[in-house]
Amino acid sequence: MKFSFARIPLIYFGAGSVSLLPKAIGQFGNTCLIVTGASSLRTSGRLERIHALLREAGIHYEIISVSGEPTPNAVDAAVIEFRSKGIGAVVAIGGGSAIDAGKAISAMLPSGDSVIDYLEGIGTKQHPGEKVPFIAVPTTGGTGSEATKNAVLSKSGKGGFKRSLRHDNFVPNVALIDPELAMGVPFEVTAATGLDALTQLIEAYVSTAANPMADALALSGLEKIKQSFIPLCTGAGDELVHRTSMAYAALMSGIALANAGLGVVHGIAPALGSIFGLTHGVACGTLLGASVKVTVQKLMERGEESHLQKFARIGALFTGCDVRETSRACERLVFLLEEWVELLKMPRLSKFGIRESDFDEILSQSSNKNNPASLSKDEMRCILAQRL
Amino acid sequence: MKFSFARIPLIYFGAGSVSLLPKAIGQFGNTCLIVTGASSLRTSGRLERIHALLREAGIHYEIISVSGEPTPNAVDAAVIEFRSKGIGAVVAIGGGSAIDAGKAISAMLPSGDSVIDYLEGIGTKQHPGEKVPFIAVPTTGGTGSEATKNAVLSKSGKGGFKRSLRHDNFVPNVALIDPELAMGVPFEVTAATGLDALTQLIEAYVSTAANPMADALALSGLEKIKQSFIPLCTGAGDELVHRTSMAYAALMSGIALANAGLGVVHGIAPALGSIFGLTHGVACGTLLGASVKVTVQKLMERGEESHLQKFARIGALFTGCDVRETSRACERLVFLLEEWVELLKMPRLSKFGIRESDFDEILSQSSNKNNPASLSKDEMRCILAQRL
Repeated sequence: MKFSFARIPLIYFGAGSVSLLPKAIGQFGNTCLIVTGASSLRTSGRLERIHALLREAGIHYEIISVSGEPTPNAVDAAVIEFRSKGIGAVVAIGGGSAIDAGKAISAMLPSGDSVIDYLEGIGTKQHPGEKVPFIAVPTTGGTGSEATKNAVLSKSGKGGFKRSLRHDNFVPNVALIDPELAMGVPFEVTAATGLDALTQLIEAYVSTAANPMADALALSGLEKIKQSFIPLCTGAGDELVHRTSMAYAALMSGIALANAGLGVVHGIAPALGSIFGLTHGVACGTLLGASVKVTVQKLMERGEESHLQKFARIGALFTGCDVRETSRACERLVFLLEEWVELLKMPRLSKFGIRESDFDEILSQSSNKNNPASLSKDEMRCILAQRL
Repeated sequence: MKFSFARIPLIYFGAGSVSLLPKAIGQFGNTCLIVTGASSLRTSGRLERIHALLREAGIHYEIISVSGEPTPNAVDAAVIEFRSKGIGAVVAIGGGSAIDAGKAISAMLPSGDSVIDYLEGIGTKQHPGEKVPFIAVPTTGGTGSEATKNAVLSKSGKGGFKRSLRHDNFVPNVALIDPELAMGVPFEVTAATGLDALTQLIEAYVSTAANPMADALALSGLEKIKQSFIPLCTGAGDELVHRTSMAYAALMSGIALANAGLGVVHGIAPALGSIFGLTHGVACGTLLGASVKVTVQKLMERGEESHLQKFARIGALFTGCDVRETSRACERLVFLLEEWVELLKMPRLSKFGIRESDFDEILSQSSNKNNPASLSKDEMRCILAQRL
């Protein structure tokens, strides 16, 4: 057993915890930059209430909105605009896009350099890790970005990319997670972000870079997924209870993936996003069932019992079947995931204009990441074909 | 579900990870203060190897030794001696005492104030949280202090005390955990520190302030205790494998207790330490079985099923019995813990000159902390009487 584990944010979790935001900001001074992308927050009046909280606490703030998944240009523009304004902390309130934008802005404010120079696989410079303190306030309960050390930036269209700015120090200083902020988020977003969290939990748990700490947290998140994901999406039971479970699961997924890596779904999804414009949650959601199926098949062919046992443990958790019957538990898991992908109406790839002739381009930008079975291009093609 | 969770250290875990110490120190400059208390490290030559590592990396270091559990005077003396020496990081290498000493020194170096003014229940000042970066390198695999936000300082003898200096920011910046450093630690220390870790894991898991994250990590630590604690103490199997498990369990216990609190064992143990000189591990170890027994009995009388189910889950994990048979699993747990306390030769209180007439003084300084059943003084007296 040998691993490293990055610092996690100071976490404030629970309904109503947004009231702790002034305290969280206060430790870094009294001027902050708020990054938001969530128009739903505006329309629901929740953002106005957050502003009132800050004004009452005497905190000065500037606001910037980002729409859609953040681009390097948007980050650079924000850095230029706010660099000389004595920002003590950056506070991102929104979904994964807003949080990734805020994370990147907080990382670039000290130097004022263009973020493109530091993106993995694109830029050539090593970021020293210095940043303005960063507070993440997620509102969609999906991406786990409130606990990760990377910000994903993208440029869309052919020749586009989806790449990370990454450093251990970029884990947010504070993650303030108030499930009430996600109340009323529409079904499509809940389904897609929930499938993203689920994918991250599964992929981190079965990763070749797994470690016992990340495993424990991933399983703890998967327990909450079991309790609340489908009930929340189908409108059964108490929405706040389920939003709380899903916010917790997303947080665990972020901590787990930051320390154990991800698998083939996350090896393919960015290409679908950058070339064909699929949102990250939908890209993951549509691929999840087929990817686990192909991975489990390959592990079975090779008799890789230890990895199969981890899939079996998830299968047993979700379906109640006997964990010791490894093959059966794995099969039940695959069946259940495929069922969920249908139930949650994840669109097929053809809906985005993707054709079999696009597979080569997609796969040229794809990888296995830390998938427990290393899949060939043909095996990845098989995943795409199942979802065409 | 509502909780806060403190930042954890950046963790480097595994055999040989001590080689990462220069890198860990390097991020905070090239001058550090090493705090050590472990004479065993000296005699084994391991400390000399660590010095060589630092010299090769061009890191300047000062060294200070603390013997026994740290006192406020020792901390103040170190702060006075090293305050003007441009220390970039404090590195504590040793058992819980050395780590707590280093943690307190790192916290007092910026202001130079006397630590006594900031001790809980003794001083009157609030620490602002500013500190010199702190790196913990545990060598005994017991206390979990490498992941906690408090340093326990004590003054011994009648009228003595055992109190914490505490702040969220005092969680070490880095915890470097190399189980090889604990190879060859004598049976008595392994038994006592292991029982301390076990006590912390159980008490945090069943705490009234428990939360799912701390629960997940505590259970993960308890799994390793099950695999390795008794085999290590009885010399069965591979020592390094077992030391690794126990170092992991101790780390999990520190994270869990820092975020979920502790119970009545830790409510009584400090008084035994400050008045009668029991080391912390021995005080916890000797009380563990009787405390769980009395707590479980009270929970059963009151029919507090949810707390009993958590004890049952530990019982099922350790003994393989059915978790759904709550009472039986709790009874098996109590029986097993009492057996371990005997097997590990935990001394009875009378061995330290404690008599029934001392119970009032001990109990006047004791509390329930976050014990799942709030015990009366008479019930606590019953715990002490069982161990006389």
